[in-house]
Amino acid sequence: MYSTEKYPSKILQEAVEAIGSLPGVGSRSALRLALHLLGQPAESIHHFTEAVNRLADDVHYCHICQMIADADTCSICADRSRDARTICVVESVRDVMSIEATGQYRGVYHVLGGIISPIDGIGPSDLKIKELVERIERMHSEDAATEDLPGGDSLSLGEIEIILALSGDVEGETTSLYIYRQIEGLGVKVSTLARGLGFGDDLEYADSLTLGRSLIARQPFRP
Amino acid sequence: MYSTEKYPSKILQEAVEAIGSLPGVGSRSALRLALHLLGQPAESIHHFTEAVNRLADDVHYCHICQMIADADTCSICADRSRDARTICVVESVRDVMSIEATGQYRGVYHVLGGIISPIDGIGPSDLKIKELVERIERMHSEDAATEDLPGGDSLSLGEIEIILALSGDVEGETTSLYIYRQIEGLGVKVSTLARGLGFGDDLEYADSLTLGRSLIARQPFRP
Repeated sequence: MYSTEKYPSKILQEAVEAIGSLPGVGSRSALRLALHLLGQPAESIHHFTEAVNRLADDVHYCHICQMIADADTCSICADRSRDARTICVVESVRDVMSIEATGQYRGVYHVLGGIISPIDGIGPSDLKIKELVERIERMHSEDAATEDLPGGDSLSLGEIEIILALSGDVEGETTSLYIYRQIEGLGVKVSTLARGLGFGDDLEYADSLTLGRSLIARQPFRP
Repeated sequence: MYSTEKYPSKILQEAVEAIGSLPGVGSRSALRLALHLLGQPAESIHHFTEAVNRLADDVHYCHICQMIADADTCSICADRSRDARTICVVESVRDVMSIEATGQYRGVYHVLGGIISPIDGIGPSDLKIKELVERIERMHSEDAATEDLPGGDSLSLGEIEIILALSGDVEGETTSLYIYRQIEGLGVKVSTLARGLGFGDDLEYADSLTLGRSLIARQPFRP
């Protein structure tokens, strides 16, 4: 008799444990997926694992913005129609994808690769903050790399805008503040995302923190 | 700008597609899982894919009952306290695990590895039906392998019971009937699972097919 912890095969058990270690995949789902894979031809399983292995082995990161890429420079940094003077600082690859999906942004990015979180042991030196500072300094310097600024000469620092687009929780605020302290002396413009009630949100269902802050941060009415 | 079909990296896209090919994993979940894996150390990803690869490369199947096993004989067939005269015929490894989890069964199994399904191109020869017939004949023969019948001599066929524990849909019924036709001449006892209302089920919520059949198959009341 198998209990929920006991499997007919150690190999099956280890596969279930590996699949169940993925976020949001419970032990029942993991068993279902493992048994599905078990029923597949070996080449299908190998195709699956090779695609996953390439995430570990073959992925490049853009040397300018640290975004995932298939080459040394990502498609956004390589795109000369993007405004390289506006750099949106985000936590992760996913955030870049979310912002790109809005279709509202024509600048470039800087992917930190995480957020300052003492509880997870992640400090500023684990993130690409130094790279951001160096990138800004490089844009200003005489020998501004054409890669950083396609088609342009070096910029005065006042022409550069850094948008801190991090999450609104304590870790995000801490990280934003830390980055601000690192770059405020450079003279670049620093902005952050607008916060307030969501567009179309009903006051009745808004959480009181958001509602309160939206009142404090009220803006001129533009009819 | 990325649409939902466009990814910043072909490697990421292929990983998302591979993960999204798993049953019950949608494209959003697949992206979430791929980005999670992308953030893991390479050794974690390799540990994951190795555990999955072993499903293709290292799994054994019991030479008696076709159950997944870590050796040539599974732990159930190797267990001398199990009643090897009672063979429960099931579709899959998962069904064995489900029945074992009930703790109500002390016999052994025969895993077909599927079910007859013309629409999926699965015929009787794709299943371990021939192996079942041979197994029964071997139990009866003079040189009954001790593996098939731990501690026993050959059996008269009337001592052997085959429980057809397949699903109640058309494919299951078809497969049960096919197997029955193959073994009815052997003189073994053939049974199937009781069907009716679930224990504790409320009449009000029972589907009418089950309720109707439970009426027709009514049983003596045992107070």
